[in-house]
Amino acid sequence: MLNPNDLIVDGWDISNLELDAAMKRAQVLDVDLQKQLAPFLKGIKPKPSVYYPDFIALNQKERANNVVNVDSAKEVDTNRKWQDVETIRSDIQNFKKQHNLEQVIVLWTANTERYSDIIDGVNDTSENLLKSIQENHPEVSPSTVFAVASILEGVPYINGSPQNTFVPGVIELAEKNQTFIGGDDFKSGQTKIKSVLAQFLVDAGIRPISIASYNHLGNNDGYNLSSPKQFKSKEISKRGVVDDIIESNQILYNEELGKKIDHCIVIKYLQAVKDSKVAMDEYYSELMLGGHNKISIHNVCEDSLLATPLIIDLVVMTEFLSRVSYKKDNSNEYHNFYSVLTLLSYWLKAPLTKPGYKVINGLNKQRLAIENLLRLLVGLPINNELRFEERLV
Amino acid sequence: MLNPNDLIVDGWDISNLELDAAMKRAQVLDVDLQKQLAPFLKGIKPKPSVYYPDFIALNQKERANNVVNVDSAKEVDTNRKWQDVETIRSDIQNFKKQHNLEQVIVLWTANTERYSDIIDGVNDTSENLLKSIQENHPEVSPSTVFAVASILEGVPYINGSPQNTFVPGVIELAEKNQTFIGGDDFKSGQTKIKSVLAQFLVDAGIRPISIASYNHLGNNDGYNLSSPKQFKSKEISKRGVVDDIIESNQILYNEELGKKIDHCIVIKYLQAVKDSKVAMDEYYSELMLGGHNKISIHNVCEDSLLATPLIIDLVVMTEFLSRVSYKKDNSNEYHNFYSVLTLLSYWLKAPLTKPGYKVINGLNKQRLAIENLLRLLVGLPINNELRFEERLV
Amino acid sequence: MLNPNDLIVDGWDISNLELDAAMKRAQVLDVDLQKQLAPFLKGIKPKPSVYYPDFIALNQKERANNVVNVDSAKEVDTNRKWQDVETIRSDIQNFKKQHNLEQVIVLWTANTERYSDIIDGVNDTSENLLKSIQENHPEVSPSTVFAVASILEGVPYINGSPQNTFVPGVIELAEKNQTFIGGDDFKSGQTKIKSVLAQFLVDAGIRPISIASYNHLGNNDGYNLSSPKQFKSKEISKRGVVDDIIESNQILYNEELGKKIDHCIVIKYLQAVKDSKVAMDEYYSELMLGGHNKISIHNVCEDSLLATPLIIDLVVMTEFLSRVSYKKDNSNEYHNFYSVLTLLSYWLKAPLTKPGYKVINGLNKQRLAIENLLRLLVGLPINNELRFEERLV
Amino acid sequence: MLNPNDLIVDGWDISNLELDAAMKRAQVLDVDLQKQLAPFLKGIKPKPSVYYPDFIALNQKERANNVVNVDSAKEVDTNRKWQDVETIRSDIQNFKKQHNLEQVIVLWTANTERYSDIIDGVNDTSENLLKSIQENHPEVSPSTVFAVASILEGVPYINGSPQNTFVPGVIELAEKNQTFIGGDDFKSGQTKIKSVLAQFLVDAGIRPISIASYNHLGNNDGYNLSSPKQFKSKEISKRGVVDDIIESNQILYNEELGKKIDHCIVIKYLQAVKDSKVAMDEYYSELMLGGHNKISIHNVCEDSLLATPLIIDLVVMTEFLSRVSYKKDNSNEYHNFYSVLTLLSYWLKAPLTKPGYKVINGLNKQRLAIENLLRLLVGLPINNELRFEERLV
Repeated sequence: MLNPNDLIVDGWDISNLELDAAMKRAQVLDVDLQKQLAPFLKGIKPKPSVYYPDFIALNQKERANNVVNVDSAKEVDTNRKWQDVETIRSDIQNFKKQHNLEQVIVLWTANTERYSDIIDGVNDTSENLLKSIQENHPEVSPSTVFAVASILEGVPYINGSPQNTFVPGVIELAEKNQTFIGGDDFKSGQTKIKSVLAQFLVDAGIRPISIASYNHLGNNDGYNLSSPKQFKSKEISKRGVVDDIIESNQILYNEELGKKIDHCIVIKYLQAVKDSKVAMDEYYSELMLGGHNKISIHNVCEDSLLATPLIIDLVVMTEFLSRVSYKKDNSNEYHNFYSVLTLLSYWLKAPLTKPGYKVINGLNKQRLAIENLLRLLVGLPINNELRFEERLV
Repeated sequence: MLNPNDLIVDGWDISNLELDAAMKRAQVLDVDLQKQLAPFLKGIKPKPSVYYPDFIALNQKERANNVVNVDSAKEVDTNRKWQDVETIRSDIQNFKKQHNLEQVIVLWTANTERYSDIIDGVNDTSENLLKSIQENHPEVSPSTVFAVASILEGVPYINGSPQNTFVPGVIELAEKNQTFIGGDDFKSGQTKIKSVLAQFLVDAGIRPISIASYNHLGNNDGYNLSSPKQFKSKEISKRGVVDDIIESNQILYNEELGKKIDHCIVIKYLQAVKDSKVAMDEYYSELMLGGHNKISIHNVCEDSLLATPLIIDLVVMTEFLSRVSYKKDNSNEYHNFYSVLTLLSYWLKAPLTKPGYKVINGLNKQRLAIENLLRLLVGLPINNELRFEERLV
Repeated sequence: MLNPNDLIVDGWDISNLELDAAMKRAQVLDVDLQKQLAPFLKGIKPKPSVYYPDFIALNQKERANNVVNVDSAKEVDTNRKWQDVETIRSDIQNFKKQHNLEQVIVLWTANTERYSDIIDGVNDTSENLLKSIQENHPEVSPSTVFAVASILEGVPYINGSPQNTFVPGVIELAEKNQTFIGGDDFKSGQTKIKSVLAQFLVDAGIRPISIASYNHLGNNDGYNLSSPKQFKSKEISKRGVVDDIIESNQILYNEELGKKIDHCIVIKYLQAVKDSKVAMDEYYSELMLGGHNKISIHNVCEDSLLATPLIIDLVVMTEFLSRVSYKKDNSNEYHNFYSVLTLLSYWLKAPLTKPGYKVINGLNKQRLAIENLLRLLVGLPINNELRFEERLV
Repeated sequence: MLNPNDLIVDGWDISNLELDAAMKRAQVLDVDLQKQLAPFLKGIKPKPSVYYPDFIALNQKERANNVVNVDSAKEVDTNRKWQDVETIRSDIQNFKKQHNLEQVIVLWTANTERYSDIIDGVNDTSENLLKSIQENHPEVSPSTVFAVASILEGVPYINGSPQNTFVPGVIELAEKNQTFIGGDDFKSGQTKIKSVLAQFLVDAGIRPISIASYNHLGNNDGYNLSSPKQFKSKEISKRGVVDDIIESNQILYNEELGKKIDHCIVIKYLQAVKDSKVAMDEYYSELMLGGHNKISIHNVCEDSLLATPLIIDLVVMTEFLSRVSYKKDNSNEYHNFYSVLTLLSYWLKAPLTKPGYKVINGLNKQRLAIENLLRLLVGLPINNELRFEERLV
């Protein structure tokens, strides 16, 4: 596997702050550590990024001082979005050339956008999508512009935010170009624990009847999510996590007992707590004979410090998976994996799947998939926990 | 599998309370439900049980009004413990005969005993153990008496409490008699969640550096555990759960960073909360770049209502496993499973293993073992989560 | 003081359920207790109440089967609201006569209404208000109809919900009629603790910078509050509680450090938890030298069982205060207390004050006021805690 | 009042670390802040202190490298403790002279000691105590040596730790010398909130039946308290806080319902959390009609940053109170306050009282005492919250 120290990192940002100043603004790292890191970050400025104000919260406007195609931001220019695709493509090419890289991977870790409407004739096929971009259609989001540019450049694209970047036209485009995509939304904290605990309870025959999830955070992510449309994207991403768990146990969730969990999700922006995100979850479950079980979880963490290792993991794993090839027993032809890298779902809250397949949210299943693939590739027997050596005479 | 409705239940108790009165004393069920159940429980009295005061808390003395061999409780009688074994054996035989049963399974759900010392010549071999019982040796516990009686009757014996019932002599005796044993300590609540969460954190590369576990409860289990020696048994059982998790990740737990988690366990008896046990756990973990993650869990549940389904599961599963036989590829001889049923460890806090094998505490591994064994037995492919159908082109 | 056992209780409800069935529907009391109480409640049916659908949540419509003036609910009848006032007045008269009562007290413990707009010429003076009721003005709420009816009958009226029943016209009407009013919103749980803890922190020189308050409940109160306008009334009532605490300490809250606390309030309806309300509060405060203090409170309680004693206290205290009279040193004329009974604010979340006076939210100040008034009335020295007897030589 | 900036600070410590190194070892302040402060602290070394190993935890031994009278630590020297008193007296004199101070105040903020036995003839009277010190009696603690030295020098002495420094002989000595003493144990965190919340609940007619208090911390205070005898001192100090609250309400706590609260206190040393103390409290209370209320509090704070302002407050207040004098109405003679400054109890967990008087633990009462004394001294009416201006017509 790739050694993370061999990665060359660059990026786009609608804010032009140099990285040392951005680190200071973010107030995540200890001040003393900031001072040690600043000399290495000074002078690094992100490339101008794509900014369509309608897609992120209004409150982000004051940050947007580093924008490509700024004149056409007035949106007079009818093919502005296509120009943006070309700018990003050229950025990718230059970055690759400049550092003499073997492989580029693009990962969206920017603001949560609002959902894009899926409209027939607009973003439903790859052809329509490309046409819509050329016609500057208002329903094409910045993240989709990045995804399309990456696909056309043949580089993998990972979406770490909850919005539906991967409209059907994008997925089709990736399939056609045989490039890799993966998403959505980093699974760093509350949702990850929820997928573990809800699965655990249901597996144990304990029946959750309500889950209340409250969050507050004071970083820019939270500031953007304080806007209803962006929150909506996040809520959808967070809500799905228990769906397949409910489906997995039709003894606990049936017509008679009810087929759902009362599930509320709240995110509040409280500036005072900065990056120190607080997540509170309360699971209320039924036991036998009228009993109840209540589990309350209170989780405090520096959100960014949980997310950053996921970014590295996703990049290392994507690079690795992009190099795996296989052939069927009776064939001589080697293939790569299917475009949507569902093996990345261990790190992602709302896993993108191959159209027609069910989402697997259970964290342990996701992990076992990776573990067993790696074992297979190095020739180890897969892990089935049967351990007959200790169970038989 | 056995339908739980076909089970016939009977038992021993050092308290002679009829079951309707015991239900009332326990204050677990809603009063209205108690009133509905009382007619079915009235008149059922537990058989006299084995009571050696040294093994459980002094505060249990007032309950001990239903004791076998009560005269020899004065411990003058030199072979009293052997008489107790015979009483239990005869109880098992009568129960089987009376109800015309195919199979009897004995499960210890009584008080936590203090640990027995393992002494050369006393309980280290099956032969020495039998001799020690005959000589009324003080280090033979009531639960060991029950285990030995069950083994000699050829019936499986499950230990739902934390003490070391299964001294080496008991394990050897079960091996010799080819009967089944399983233990120790029901995994109903806090420890179960801990095994899930600690595994989750370590798997995610988050490094727990301390875990503080506080419990309080007001039922008779808690009353008995308020005595130091009995608490000690419980503490050992609860403490082990993170050991193999630490061992599983030598990147996070190594010479340089430290190989252990600061782990404290507290159980307090607070009569006021009755059976409504409160468990609080706090996980404090290190993130990258000096960050920390703190997860606090507060869990309230009716302890008995969590434990009861485990009892049913353990009995159903033990009965099932006792009927599984296998033969090796190049042999015609069928065998049963090895005496220690490690497949039961999903329900047990401190899994008893085959001598020489490591304990597996990770709940998901334990579950996968059962799932895959059952799939194997019905001819389904084992579950490896590879799901190539959705990952390949 | 009045012995609560001497109270005769009756009431209005838009639902016609008899009290035994209402008790069952509410699922607050233990089933066994319900069965004991049912015979005493059977056959008691609330009087038809005033229902203007615009003021409470749409989801309450299905309950509204016991409504006065039901024909005019179509709101064709132009003086419908005045008829409602007269119906309530006549109910009060009949109740008093029927039971031969000395005193009647009316207390609103019904659903939270939306806020009424304060409109010049409509509800700004007593005269305009009475005219608006006669003209069936849409901005007159049911609770205001009850308040006006009570005032005109000369009986005290207490508002236990958060809406602004007491529009300026009601206060003026009470002043003119020299009757008593008190409000608003029972202070039963989270807010009460908040007033205690926030005051404690600020008094200790610890500076709260954010307070996050999350609630969920599954009773009909919660169901009604799941509607945004009704929630708004509740939010205003809950929010005010820290305002005077902030104002009380201008060293901690000044121009430089900031004059406010980031304060978010969330109420969610989760049917599963029924009357067992969960309130979570998180106080994040600054200490000296860059330190922080975080207090998280998790509170579970049967909401109705906290509120009921407040109702009794409020009634007993109102009856008592209505009998207190005083004269000034140099006068012979005795007066009753001023119409707005601010001494009731100990039990109320958003205390109504005499126009022009500041709200006192600090619970201890509210309590000391009552304690010292009572001491004064029985001739004891007021409680000043100086205790010179132990401090001097 | 004294401006805290005018204070000159010096001290004794059994560890000889210079203050900049001690700050680093303590890991309380942010590293960046440490670097800013270090130049001001460098070179400041505490004076050698009194160390009798029997009184603090064995684990403190490795720190004890800065000890007065080190030769006599072998305890051969029969009047060693008297020499220690003289050393401390001479330290105080030199400190006063060197800085030309008006007033010296000595405050114990060192380790928690074990309790001293109160023995007739040893520490029961001032005379016996002085004699015992001269005879090097083993039951005389270091903190008592400091107290006696301070009293003999005529300077106030405040005890910020829980042990019983103030044996009867010390109190008598202070009375005789008319010097001031105050104690015991800083009320910085959990206990302070407990005194507020327990009082609040009982005042509200809600009846706590159990309180479980769990703490863990990883600083040296916690390390010392991990030793049972020292923990015992702390436990006594923490336990008392609800006693007078129970006594204050004999309707809730009577013969029939029970006169006590099940109250458990646990302190664990978990090195990993350093100075970031975690305190969890759970209040379980009875409501009417069989209901219950459960309040769980989780409090995280830098313990030292909560305690430091208390030290300043105590010193400023003690200095102030030492200057207040009064005379009785019919006398011309002015007196100072009585030796035991009970007005300091607002900051102290286990307030020392005048012999024969009850402890007042309620925080609000303690605060009102200070507030009203100050108002009295500046000629303001005392605060009784009667506010007739808003309550009368």
